[in-house]
Amino acid sequence: MNTAAKVWLVGAGPGDPELLTIKAARLLTRARVVLYDHLVGDEVLGLVPADALRVYVGKQEGCHAVPQEEISRMLVRFATAGSEVVRLKGGDPLVFGRGGEEAQALARAGIPFEVVPGITSAQGMSACAGIPLTHRDHASSVVLVTGHTKDDEPACDWASLARPRQTVVFYMGLRALPRICRELIAHGMAVDTPAAVVERATTPRQRVVTGTLLTLAALARAHEVRSPALVVVGDVVRLRDELVMRSAAEAPAPAGQRPQRALRPARSRASTGA
Amino acid sequence: MNTAAKVWLVGAGPGDPELLTIKAARLLTRARVVLYDHLVGDEVLGLVPADALRVYVGKQEGCHAVPQEEISRMLVRFATAGSEVVRLKGGDPLVFGRGGEEAQALARAGIPFEVVPGITSAQGMSACAGIPLTHRDHASSVVLVTGHTKDDEPACDWASLARPRQTVVFYMGLRALPRICRELIAHGMAVDTPAAVVERATTPRQRVVTGTLLTLAALARAHEVRSPALVVVGDVVRLRDELVMRSAAEAPAPAGQRPQRALRPARSRASTGA
Repeated sequence: MNTAAKVWLVGAGPGDPELLTIKAARLLTRARVVLYDHLVGDEVLGLVPADALRVYVGKQEGCHAVPQEEISRMLVRFATAGSEVVRLKGGDPLVFGRGGEEAQALARAGIPFEVVPGITSAQGMSACAGIPLTHRDHASSVVLVTGHTKDDEPACDWASLARPRQTVVFYMGLRALPRICRELIAHGMAVDTPAAVVERATTPRQRVVTGTLLTLAALARAHEVRSPALVVVGDVVRLRDELVMRSAAEAPAPAGQRPQRALRPARSRASTGA
Repeated sequence: MNTAAKVWLVGAGPGDPELLTIKAARLLTRARVVLYDHLVGDEVLGLVPADALRVYVGKQEGCHAVPQEEISRMLVRFATAGSEVVRLKGGDPLVFGRGGEEAQALARAGIPFEVVPGITSAQGMSACAGIPLTHRDHASSVVLVTGHTKDDEPACDWASLARPRQTVVFYMGLRALPRICRELIAHGMAVDTPAAVVERATTPRQRVVTGTLLTLAALARAHEVRSPALVVVGDVVRLRDELVMRSAAEAPAPAGQRPQRALRPARSRASTGA
Protein backbone atom coordinates (compact mmCIF):
# COMPACT_ATOMS: atom_id res chain seq x y z
CA MET A 1 0.00 0.00 0.00
CA ASN A 2 2.54 2.59 1.11
CA THR A 3 5.80 2.86 3.00
CA ALA A 4 4.82 5.76 5.23
CA ALA A 5 5.81 5.59 8.88
CA LYS A 6 3.23 5.48 11.60
CA VAL A 7 1.60 8.38 13.44
CA TRP A 8 0.68 8.04 17.10
CA LEU A 9 -2.12 10.30 18.30
CA VAL A 10 -1.25 10.40 21.98
CA GLY A 11 -3.13 11.84 24.95
CA ALA A 12 -0.82 13.73 27.31
CA GLY A 13 -3.32 13.66 30.15
CA PRO A 14 -4.38 16.61 32.29
CA GLY A 15 -0.98 18.02 33.22
CA ASP A 16 0.54 15.90 36.00
CA PRO A 17 3.21 13.81 34.21
CA GLU A 18 2.45 10.85 36.50
CA LEU A 19 -1.01 10.73 34.93
CA LEU A 20 0.44 9.84 31.54
CA THR A 21 -0.23 6.26 30.52
CA ILE A 22 2.71 3.87 30.44
CA LYS A 23 2.22 3.59 26.70
CA ALA A 24 2.33 7.35 26.14
CA ALA A 25 5.48 7.64 28.24
CA ARG A 26 7.14 4.82 26.32
CA LEU A 27 6.32 6.45 22.98
CA LEU A 28 7.57 9.85 24.13
CA THR A 29 10.90 8.58 25.45
CA ARG A 30 11.74 7.10 22.05
CA ALA A 31 10.11 9.76 19.86
CA ARG A 32 11.97 11.35 16.96
CA VAL A 33 9.30 13.87 15.87
CA VAL A 34 6.72 15.35 18.23
CA LEU A 35 3.96 17.82 17.33
CA TYR A 36 2.50 19.23 20.52
CA ASP A 37 -0.21 21.63 21.72
CA HIS A 38 -0.30 24.51 24.15
CA LEU A 39 -1.88 22.44 26.91
CA VAL A 40 0.92 19.88 27.09
CA GLY A 41 2.99 20.44 30.23
CA ASP A 42 6.75 21.00 30.27
CA GLU A 43 7.35 17.94 32.43
CA VAL A 44 5.58 15.72 29.90
CA LEU A 45 7.60 17.26 27.06
CA GLY A 46 10.72 16.65 29.13
CA LEU A 47 10.36 12.93 28.38
CA VAL A 48 11.09 13.56 24.68
CA PRO A 49 14.76 12.95 23.78
CA ALA A 50 16.78 16.18 23.56
CA ASP A 51 17.72 15.58 19.94
CA ALA A 52 14.16 14.89 18.74
CA LEU A 53 12.35 17.38 16.55
CA ARG A 54 9.66 19.21 18.55
CA VAL A 55 7.08 21.22 16.69
CA TYR A 56 4.79 23.54 18.63
CA VAL A 57 1.44 23.81 16.89
CA GLY A 58 -0.25 26.01 19.45
CA LYS A 59 -3.97 25.99 20.03
CA GLN A 60 -4.55 28.26 22.96
CA GLU A 61 -8.19 29.05 23.57
CA GLY A 62 -9.20 31.33 20.71
CA CYS A 63 -5.68 31.45 19.30
CA HIS A 64 -4.38 28.74 17.00
CA ALA A 65 -0.70 29.03 16.16
CA VAL A 66 -1.19 26.59 13.27
CA PRO A 67 -4.58 25.99 11.61
CA GLN A 68 -6.03 22.50 12.09
CA GLU A 69 -5.81 21.66 8.38
CA GLU A 70 -2.13 22.55 8.36
CA ILE A 71 -1.49 20.33 11.40
CA SER A 72 -3.10 17.42 9.57
CA ARG A 73 -0.97 18.14 6.48
CA MET A 74 2.19 18.27 8.60
CA LEU A 75 1.38 14.86 10.11
CA VAL A 76 0.95 13.38 6.64
CA ARG A 77 4.15 15.01 5.36
CA PHE A 78 6.34 13.82 8.23
CA ALA A 79 4.97 10.28 8.02
CA THR A 80 5.26 10.13 4.24
CA ALA A 81 8.89 11.20 4.59
CA GLY A 82 9.44 8.14 6.77
CA SER A 83 9.40 9.63 10.27
CA GLU A 84 7.40 7.99 13.02
CA VAL A 85 5.45 10.90 14.49
CA VAL A 86 3.98 11.43 17.95
CA ARG A 87 1.08 13.88 17.88
CA LEU A 88 0.79 14.89 21.51
CA LYS A 89 -2.44 16.46 22.75
CA GLY A 90 -3.56 17.60 26.17
CA GLY A 91 -6.08 15.24 27.77
CA ASP A 92 -7.50 12.57 25.45
CA PRO A 93 -7.14 12.91 21.66
CA LEU A 94 -10.75 11.89 21.04
CA VAL A 95 -12.39 14.07 23.72
CA PHE A 96 -12.41 17.65 22.38
CA GLY A 97 -8.91 17.03 21.04
CA ARG A 98 -9.83 17.07 17.35
CA GLY A 99 -7.99 13.77 17.12
CA GLY A 100 -10.83 12.40 15.04
CA GLU A 101 -10.17 14.96 12.33
CA GLU A 102 -6.46 14.20 12.30
CA ALA A 103 -7.18 10.48 12.21
CA GLN A 104 -9.47 11.03 9.21
CA ALA A 105 -6.76 12.99 7.39
CA LEU A 106 -4.28 10.19 8.04
CA ALA A 107 -6.72 7.47 6.97
CA ARG A 108 -7.46 9.35 3.75
CA ALA A 109 -3.76 9.66 3.03
CA GLY A 110 -3.23 5.95 3.73
CA ILE A 111 -0.93 6.67 6.70
CA PRO A 112 -1.01 4.03 9.46
CA PHE A 113 -1.91 5.45 12.85
CA GLU A 114 -2.87 4.47 16.35
CA VAL A 115 -4.66 6.41 19.07
CA VAL A 116 -3.41 6.27 22.67
CA PRO A 117 -6.06 7.55 25.08
CA GLY A 118 -5.21 9.95 27.90
CA ILE A 119 -6.79 10.96 31.18
CA THR A 120 -9.11 13.77 30.18
CA SER A 121 -9.17 16.89 32.32
CA ALA A 122 -12.63 16.16 33.75
CA GLN A 123 -11.19 12.97 35.26
CA GLY A 124 -8.10 14.69 36.60
CA MET A 125 -10.26 17.42 38.08
CA SER A 126 -12.60 14.88 39.61
CA ALA A 127 -9.80 13.00 41.36
CA CYS A 128 -7.94 16.08 42.56
CA ALA A 129 -10.84 18.36 43.47
CA GLY A 130 -12.93 15.76 45.29
CA ILE A 131 -15.85 15.93 42.86
CA PRO A 132 -16.91 12.43 41.64
CA LEU A 133 -18.21 12.48 38.07
CA THR A 134 -20.88 9.91 38.88
CA HIS A 135 -22.31 8.78 42.19
CA ARG A 136 -25.12 6.37 42.93
CA ASP A 137 -27.00 8.88 45.07
CA HIS A 138 -26.40 11.99 42.94
CA ALA A 139 -25.56 11.38 39.28
CA SER A 140 -26.16 8.34 37.08
CA SER A 141 -24.56 10.01 34.07
CA VAL A 142 -21.87 12.53 33.20
CA VAL A 143 -21.89 14.83 30.19
CA LEU A 144 -18.68 16.30 28.80
CA VAL A 145 -19.41 19.30 26.61
CA THR A 146 -17.36 22.07 25.09
CA GLY A 147 -18.08 25.60 26.25
CA HIS A 148 -16.16 27.05 23.37
CA THR A 149 -16.92 26.90 19.68
CA LYS A 150 -15.79 28.57 16.50
CA ASP A 151 -18.10 31.55 16.86
CA ASP A 152 -17.42 31.96 20.60
CA GLU A 153 -20.94 30.86 21.44
CA PRO A 154 -21.43 27.49 23.06
CA ALA A 155 -23.76 25.52 20.78
CA CYS A 156 -25.23 23.61 23.68
CA ASP A 157 -28.48 21.72 23.87
CA TRP A 158 -29.41 23.49 27.09
CA ALA A 159 -32.60 21.53 27.66
CA SER A 160 -30.72 18.23 27.77
CA LEU A 161 -28.01 19.68 30.01
CA ALA A 162 -30.47 21.15 32.51
CA ARG A 163 -31.51 17.79 33.89
CA PRO A 164 -31.38 16.31 37.37
CA ARG A 165 -29.14 13.43 38.43
CA GLN A 166 -26.37 14.13 35.96
CA THR A 167 -23.03 15.88 36.15
CA VAL A 168 -22.14 18.34 33.39
CA VAL A 169 -18.52 19.32 32.76
CA PHE A 170 -17.89 22.22 30.38
CA TYR A 171 -14.44 22.16 28.81
CA MET A 172 -13.06 25.64 28.17
CA GLY A 173 -16.16 26.92 29.93
CA LEU A 174 -14.72 29.94 31.70
CA ARG A 175 -15.41 32.58 29.09
CA ALA A 176 -18.98 31.36 28.64
CA LEU A 177 -19.57 30.89 32.38
CA PRO A 178 -22.15 33.70 32.81
CA ARG A 179 -24.10 32.39 29.85
CA ILE A 180 -23.82 28.76 31.00
CA CYS A 181 -25.31 29.62 34.40
CA ARG A 182 -27.99 31.85 32.88
CA GLU A 183 -29.10 29.26 30.30
CA LEU A 184 -29.20 26.38 32.75
CA ILE A 185 -31.39 28.42 35.08
CA ALA A 186 -33.57 29.54 32.15
CA HIS A 187 -33.98 25.88 31.20
CA GLY A 188 -35.25 24.89 34.61
CA MET A 189 -32.30 24.14 36.88
CA ALA A 190 -32.58 25.38 40.45
CA VAL A 191 -30.59 28.55 41.13
CA ASP A 192 -28.93 26.82 44.08
CA THR A 193 -27.62 23.92 41.98
CA PRO A 194 -24.02 23.44 43.11
CA ALA A 195 -21.35 24.39 40.57
CA ALA A 196 -17.60 24.84 40.54
CA VAL A 197 -14.89 26.23 38.33
CA VAL A 198 -11.52 24.47 38.47
CA GLU A 199 -8.45 26.26 37.14
CA ARG A 200 -5.41 24.26 35.99
CA ALA A 201 -6.80 20.93 37.24
CA THR A 202 -4.23 18.43 38.60
CA THR A 203 -1.33 20.88 38.52
CA PRO A 204 0.31 22.39 41.63
CA ARG A 205 -1.44 25.64 40.69
CA GLN A 206 -4.92 24.09 40.68
CA ARG A 207 -7.58 26.37 42.17
CA VAL A 208 -11.21 25.49 42.87
CA VAL A 209 -14.03 27.98 43.33
CA THR A 210 -17.37 26.52 44.37
CA GLY A 211 -20.75 28.20 44.39
CA THR A 212 -24.15 27.83 42.78
CA LEU A 213 -25.57 28.61 39.37
CA LEU A 214 -26.57 31.97 40.84
CA THR A 215 -23.21 32.89 42.39
CA LEU A 216 -20.47 31.11 40.46
CA ALA A 217 -19.89 33.62 37.68
CA ALA A 218 -19.41 36.47 40.14
CA LEU A 219 -17.18 34.35 42.38
CA ALA A 220 -15.00 33.30 39.45
CA ARG A 221 -14.63 36.95 38.46
CA ALA A 222 -13.85 38.00 42.04
CA HIS A 223 -11.15 35.34 42.29
CA GLU A 224 -9.77 36.19 38.85
CA VAL A 225 -9.97 32.61 37.67
CA ARG A 226 -8.01 32.11 34.44
CA SER A 227 -8.01 29.57 31.61
CA PRO A 228 -7.53 26.68 31.29
CA ALA A 229 -10.52 25.99 33.48
CA LEU A 230 -13.35 23.48 33.71
CA VAL A 231 -16.87 24.30 34.85
CA VAL A 232 -18.71 21.53 36.72
CA VAL A 233 -22.43 21.60 37.44
CA GLY A 234 -24.37 19.10 39.52
CA ASP A 235 -25.07 17.76 42.98
CA VAL A 236 -21.72 15.93 43.05
CA VAL A 237 -20.03 19.32 43.58
CA ARG A 238 -21.50 19.28 47.08
CA LEU A 239 -19.51 16.11 47.88
CA ARG A 240 -16.32 18.14 47.67
CA ASP A 241 -17.02 19.59 51.12
CA GLU A 242 -17.20 16.14 52.57
CA LEU A 243 -14.33 14.61 50.60
CA VAL A 244 -11.82 17.41 50.86
CA MET A 245 -12.79 19.29 53.99
CA ARG A 246 -13.57 16.54 56.45
CA SER A 247 -10.38 14.68 55.82
CA ALA A 248 -8.26 17.83 56.07
CA ALA A 249 -7.02 18.65 59.54
CA GLU A 250 -8.74 22.00 59.79
CA ALA A 251 -12.21 23.48 59.95
CA PRO A 252 -13.98 23.60 56.60
CA ALA A 253 -14.18 26.93 54.81
CA PRO A 254 -17.69 27.81 53.69
CA ALA A 255 -18.25 26.56 50.16
CA GLY A 256 -18.07 29.32 47.61
CA GLN A 257 -16.30 31.73 49.95
CA ARG A 258 -12.78 31.28 48.74
CA PRO A 259 -10.78 29.02 46.46
CA GLN A 260 -8.66 26.24 47.88
CA ARG A 261 -5.30 25.49 46.42
CA ALA A 262 -4.33 22.09 47.78
CA LEU A 263 -6.92 19.52 46.90
CA ARG A 264 -5.66 16.06 47.49
CA PRO A 265 -7.46 15.07 50.66
CA ALA A 266 -4.42 13.48 52.26
CA ARG A 267 -2.26 16.57 51.94
CA SER A 268 -2.33 19.74 53.96
CA ARG A 269 -4.61 22.35 52.52
CA ALA A 270 -3.96 26.03 52.14
CA SER A 271 -6.43 28.58 50.94
CA THR A 272 -5.29 31.29 48.63
CA GLY A 273 -7.64 33.84 50.12
CA ALA A 274 -9.43 36.39 48.04
CA MET B 1 -6.14 13.25 64.34
CA ASN B 2 -5.33 9.60 63.73
CA THR B 3 -2.42 7.37 62.73
CA ALA B 4 -4.22 5.44 60.01
CA ALA B 5 -2.32 4.67 56.84
CA LYS B 6 -3.43 6.00 53.51
CA VAL B 7 -5.83 4.44 51.01
CA TRP B 8 -5.29 4.91 47.29
CA LEU B 9 -8.40 4.61 45.14
CA VAL B 10 -6.73 3.66 41.87
CA GLY B 11 -8.14 3.33 38.36
CA ALA B 12 -6.82 0.22 36.60
CA GLY B 13 -7.86 1.47 33.16
CA PRO B 14 -9.77 -0.49 30.55
CA GLY B 15 -7.74 -3.71 30.49
CA ASP B 16 -4.55 -3.15 28.49
CA PRO B 17 -1.82 -2.86 31.16
CA GLU B 18 -0.02 -0.25 29.04
CA LEU B 19 -3.02 2.02 29.56
CA LEU B 20 -2.37 2.22 33.29
CA THR B 21 -1.09 5.60 34.41
CA ILE B 22 2.52 5.81 35.56
CA LYS B 23 1.24 6.68 39.01
CA ALA B 24 -1.05 3.64 39.22
CA ALA B 25 1.78 1.36 38.10
CA ARG B 26 4.15 2.85 40.67
CA LEU B 27 1.61 2.34 43.46
CA LEU B 28 0.90 -1.25 42.40
CA THR B 29 4.55 -2.31 42.23
CA ARG B 30 5.08 -1.28 45.85
CA ALA B 31 1.65 -2.25 47.21
CA ARG B 32 1.30 -4.35 50.37
CA VAL B 33 -2.49 -4.70 50.39
CA VAL B 34 -4.65 -4.62 47.24
CA LEU B 35 -8.44 -4.92 47.08
CA TYR B 36 -9.47 -5.51 43.48
CA ASP B 37 -12.56 -5.96 41.33
CA HIS B 38 -13.65 -8.46 38.73
CA LEU B 39 -12.83 -6.14 35.84
CA VAL B 40 -9.16 -5.72 36.70
CA GLY B 41 -7.01 -7.69 34.27
CA ASP B 42 -4.46 -10.35 35.25
CA GLU B 43 -1.61 -8.43 33.66
CA VAL B 44 -2.37 -5.38 35.78
CA LEU B 45 -2.57 -7.52 38.91
CA GLY B 46 0.76 -9.05 37.90
CA LEU B 47 2.44 -5.77 38.87
CA VAL B 48 1.58 -6.35 42.53
CA PRO B 49 4.46 -7.92 44.51
CA ALA B 50 4.03 -11.67 44.98
CA ASP B 51 4.05 -11.40 48.77
CA ALA B 52 1.42 -8.65 48.93
CA LEU B 53 -2.05 -9.40 50.26
CA ARG B 54 -4.59 -9.49 47.42
CA VAL B 55 -8.26 -9.43 48.25
CA TYR B 56 -10.79 -10.13 45.53
CA VAL B 57 -13.99 -8.22 46.20
CA GLY B 58 -15.81 -9.24 43.07
CA LYS B 59 -18.46 -7.10 41.45
CA GLN B 60 -19.40 -8.84 38.29
CA GLU B 61 -22.45 -7.38 36.60
CA GLY B 62 -25.35 -8.31 38.84
CA CYS B 63 -23.18 -10.37 41.17
CA HIS B 64 -21.25 -8.74 43.99
CA ALA B 65 -18.87 -11.09 45.80
CA VAL B 66 -18.64 -8.57 48.65
CA PRO B 67 -21.34 -5.96 49.34
CA GLN B 68 -20.26 -2.34 48.78
CA GLU B 69 -20.67 -1.44 52.45
CA GLU B 70 -18.39 -4.32 53.45
CA ILE B 71 -15.74 -3.20 50.95
CA SER B 72 -15.79 0.26 52.51
CA ARG B 73 -15.48 -1.25 55.99
CA MET B 74 -12.54 -3.40 54.86
CA LEU B 75 -10.73 -0.34 53.52
CA VAL B 76 -11.20 1.44 56.84
CA ARG B 77 -10.08 -1.62 58.82
CA PHE B 78 -6.89 -2.21 56.83
CA ALA B 79 -5.95 1.46 56.97
CA THR B 80 -6.71 1.76 60.68
CA ALA B 81 -4.49 -1.24 61.28
CA GLY B 82 -1.66 0.69 59.64
CA SER B 83 -1.55 -0.82 56.16
CA GLU B 84 -1.34 1.40 53.11
CA VAL B 85 -4.07 0.06 50.87
CA VAL B 86 -4.52 0.16 47.11
CA ARG B 87 -8.17 -0.12 46.12
CA LEU B 88 -7.94 -1.10 42.46
CA LYS B 89 -10.95 -0.60 40.22
CA GLY B 90 -11.48 -1.19 36.51
CA GLY B 91 -11.55 2.04 34.50
CA ASP B 92 -11.74 5.23 36.56
CA PRO B 93 -12.76 5.11 40.24
CA LEU B 94 -15.09 8.10 39.90
CA VAL B 95 -16.83 7.05 36.66
CA PHE B 96 -19.32 4.30 37.60
CA GLY B 97 -16.69 2.89 39.95
CA ARG B 98 -18.47 3.76 43.19
CA GLY B 99 -15.21 5.34 44.25
CA GLY B 100 -17.16 8.32 45.54
CA GLU B 101 -18.94 6.12 48.07
CA GLU B 102 -15.69 4.57 49.24
CA ALA B 103 -14.09 8.00 49.48
CA GLN B 104 -17.00 9.18 51.62
CA ALA B 105 -16.61 6.20 53.95
CA LEU B 106 -12.90 6.93 54.29
CA ALA B 107 -13.48 10.65 54.89
CA ARG B 108 -16.08 9.88 57.56
CA ALA B 109 -13.64 7.54 59.28
CA GLY B 110 -10.87 10.14 59.12
CA ILE B 111 -8.70 7.95 56.87
CA PRO B 112 -6.41 9.86 54.47
CA PHE B 113 -6.96 8.90 50.87
CA GLU B 114 -6.11 9.94 47.34
CA VAL B 115 -7.83 9.16 44.05
CA VAL B 116 -5.76 8.19 40.99
CA PRO B 117 -7.83 8.47 37.80
CA GLY B 118 -7.77 5.78 35.14
CA ILE B 119 -8.62 5.57 31.45
CA THR B 120 -12.32 4.77 31.48
CA SER B 121 -13.56 2.07 29.12
CA ALA B 122 -15.35 4.56 26.83
CA GLN B 123 -11.96 6.14 26.11
CA GLY B 124 -10.24 2.83 25.54
CA MET B 125 -13.04 1.73 23.26
CA SER B 126 -12.90 5.01 21.38
CA ALA B 127 -9.17 4.72 20.69
CA CYS B 128 -9.21 1.03 19.79
CA ALA B 129 -12.48 0.81 17.88
CA GLY B 130 -12.02 3.95 15.78
CA ILE B 131 -15.05 5.75 17.26
CA PRO B 132 -14.16 9.30 18.44
CA LEU B 133 -16.21 10.37 21.47
CA THR B 134 -16.49 13.92 20.17
CA HIS B 135 -15.97 15.36 16.70
CA ARG B 136 -16.47 18.87 15.44
CA ASP B 137 -18.76 17.73 12.62
CA HIS B 138 -20.72 15.08 14.52
CA ALA B 139 -20.79 15.43 18.32
CA SER B 140 -20.11 18.43 20.52
CA SER B 141 -20.72 16.44 23.70
CA VAL B 142 -20.40 12.94 25.05
CA VAL B 143 -22.63 11.37 27.71
CA LEU B 144 -21.46 8.44 29.80
CA VAL B 145 -24.37 6.66 31.40
CA THR B 146 -24.88 3.38 33.18
CA GLY B 147 -27.14 0.85 31.53
CA HIS B 148 -27.37 -1.15 34.71
CA THR B 149 -28.91 -0.23 38.03
CA LYS B 150 -29.97 -1.90 41.23
CA ASP B 151 -33.34 -2.99 39.96
CA ASP B 152 -32.00 -4.12 36.55
CA GLU B 153 -33.77 -1.24 34.82
CA PRO B 154 -31.71 1.59 33.43
CA ALA B 155 -32.98 4.76 35.12
CA CYS B 156 -32.16 6.87 32.11
CA ASP B 157 -33.47 10.27 31.19
CA TRP B 158 -34.29 9.07 27.68
CA ALA B 159 -35.41 12.47 26.41
CA SER B 160 -32.02 14.01 27.16
CA LEU B 161 -30.15 11.06 25.67
CA ALA B 162 -32.16 11.07 22.43
CA ARG B 163 -30.59 14.26 21.14
CA PRO B 164 -28.64 15.04 17.99
CA ARG B 165 -24.94 15.95 17.91
CA GLN B 166 -23.98 14.00 20.98
CA THR B 167 -22.39 10.62 21.60
CA VAL B 168 -23.95 8.39 24.25
CA VAL B 169 -21.96 5.55 25.79
CA PHE B 170 -23.85 3.06 27.95
CA TYR B 171 -21.66 1.24 30.45
CA MET B 172 -22.81 -2.30 31.12
CA GLY B 173 -25.41 -1.71 28.44
CA LEU B 174 -25.57 -5.15 26.89
CA ARG B 175 -28.38 -6.62 28.93
CA ALA B 176 -30.51 -3.52 28.44
CA LEU B 177 -29.61 -3.15 24.75
CA PRO B 178 -33.08 -3.94 23.34
CA ARG B 179 -34.65 -1.47 25.73
CA ILE B 180 -32.00 1.19 25.05
CA CYS B 181 -32.66 1.04 21.30
CA ARG B 182 -36.43 0.96 21.77
CA GLU B 183 -36.50 3.94 24.17
CA LEU B 184 -34.19 6.09 22.08
CA ILE B 185 -36.38 5.51 19.03
CA ALA B 186 -39.51 6.16 21.09
CA HIS B 187 -37.98 9.45 22.23
CA GLY B 188 -37.39 10.63 18.70
CA MET B 189 -34.06 9.31 17.46
CA ALA B 190 -33.97 8.13 13.86
CA VAL B 191 -34.10 4.35 13.48
CA ASP B 192 -30.99 4.48 11.31
CA THR B 193 -28.91 6.27 13.94
CA PRO B 194 -25.56 4.44 13.96
CA ALA B 195 -24.83 2.35 17.05
CA ALA B 196 -22.25 -0.19 18.12
CA VAL B 197 -21.63 -2.69 20.87
CA VAL B 198 -18.01 -3.25 21.87
CA GLU B 199 -17.09 -6.35 23.85
CA ARG B 200 -13.93 -6.40 25.99
CA ALA B 201 -12.70 -3.04 24.72
CA THR B 202 -8.89 -2.64 24.40
CA THR B 203 -8.15 -6.30 25.09
CA PRO B 204 -6.90 -8.78 22.46
CA ARG B 205 -10.39 -10.27 22.54
CA GLN B 206 -12.14 -7.00 21.68
CA ARG B 207 -15.05 -7.42 19.29
CA VAL B 208 -17.11 -4.67 17.67
CA VAL B 209 -20.56 -5.07 16.17
CA THR B 210 -21.96 -2.04 14.37
CA GLY B 211 -25.50 -1.43 13.21
CA THR B 212 -28.33 1.01 13.83
CA LEU B 213 -30.84 1.53 16.59
CA LEU B 214 -33.13 -0.73 14.57
CA THR B 215 -30.68 -3.57 13.97
CA LEU B 216 -28.12 -3.57 16.77
CA ALA B 217 -29.94 -5.66 19.35
CA ALA B 218 -30.53 -8.47 16.86
CA LEU B 219 -26.95 -8.28 15.57
CA ALA B 220 -25.52 -8.43 19.09
CA ARG B 221 -27.65 -11.49 19.81
CA ALA B 222 -26.65 -13.13 16.52
CA HIS B 223 -22.97 -12.60 17.30
CA GLU B 224 -23.40 -13.75 20.90
CA VAL B 225 -21.80 -10.63 22.31
CA ARG B 226 -20.95 -11.07 25.99
CA SER B 227 -20.29 -8.74 28.93
CA PRO B 228 -18.32 -6.67 29.65
CA ALA B 229 -19.55 -4.58 26.76
CA LEU B 230 -20.18 -0.93 25.97
CA VAL B 231 -23.01 0.35 23.79
CA VAL B 232 -22.25 3.49 21.76
CA VAL B 233 -24.93 5.54 19.99
CA GLY B 234 -24.32 8.49 17.69
CA ASP B 235 -23.09 9.64 14.31
CA VAL B 236 -19.45 9.15 15.38
CA VAL B 237 -20.00 5.38 15.04
CA ARG B 238 -20.08 5.94 11.30
CA LEU B 239 -16.49 7.25 11.40
CA ARG B 240 -15.30 3.78 12.31
CA ASP B 241 -15.69 2.69 8.69
CA GLU B 242 -13.39 5.45 7.59
CA LEU B 243 -10.89 5.20 10.44
CA VAL B 244 -10.53 1.45 10.67
CA MET B 245 -11.43 0.21 7.22
CA ARG B 246 -9.68 2.64 4.95
CA SER B 247 -6.38 2.37 6.71
CA ALA B 248 -6.53 -1.43 6.82
CA ALA B 249 -5.06 -3.19 3.81
CA GLU B 250 -8.28 -4.80 2.70
CA ALA B 251 -11.66 -3.90 1.32
CA PRO B 252 -14.11 -2.57 3.89
CA ALA B 253 -16.73 -4.95 5.23
CA PRO B 254 -20.25 -3.55 5.22
CA ALA B 255 -21.01 -1.96 8.57
CA GLY B 256 -23.19 -4.11 10.74
CA GLN B 257 -22.52 -7.27 8.78
CA ARG B 258 -19.96 -8.86 11.01
CA PRO B 259 -17.83 -8.04 14.01
CA GLN B 260 -14.18 -7.19 13.60
CA ARG B 261 -11.62 -8.43 16.03
CA ALA B 262 -8.49 -6.40 15.40
CA LEU B 263 -9.19 -2.73 15.71
CA ARG B 264 -6.04 -0.75 15.86
CA PRO B 265 -5.93 0.78 12.40
CA ALA B 266 -2.24 0.14 11.85
CA ARG B 267 -2.47 -3.56 12.57
CA SER B 268 -3.77 -6.30 10.35
CA ARG B 269 -7.45 -6.89 10.78
CA ALA B 270 -9.29 -10.17 10.93
CA SER B 271 -13.00 -10.61 11.16
CA THR B 272 -14.38 -13.24 13.41
CA GLY B 273 -17.21 -14.06 11.08
CA ALA B 274 -20.62 -14.97 12.32
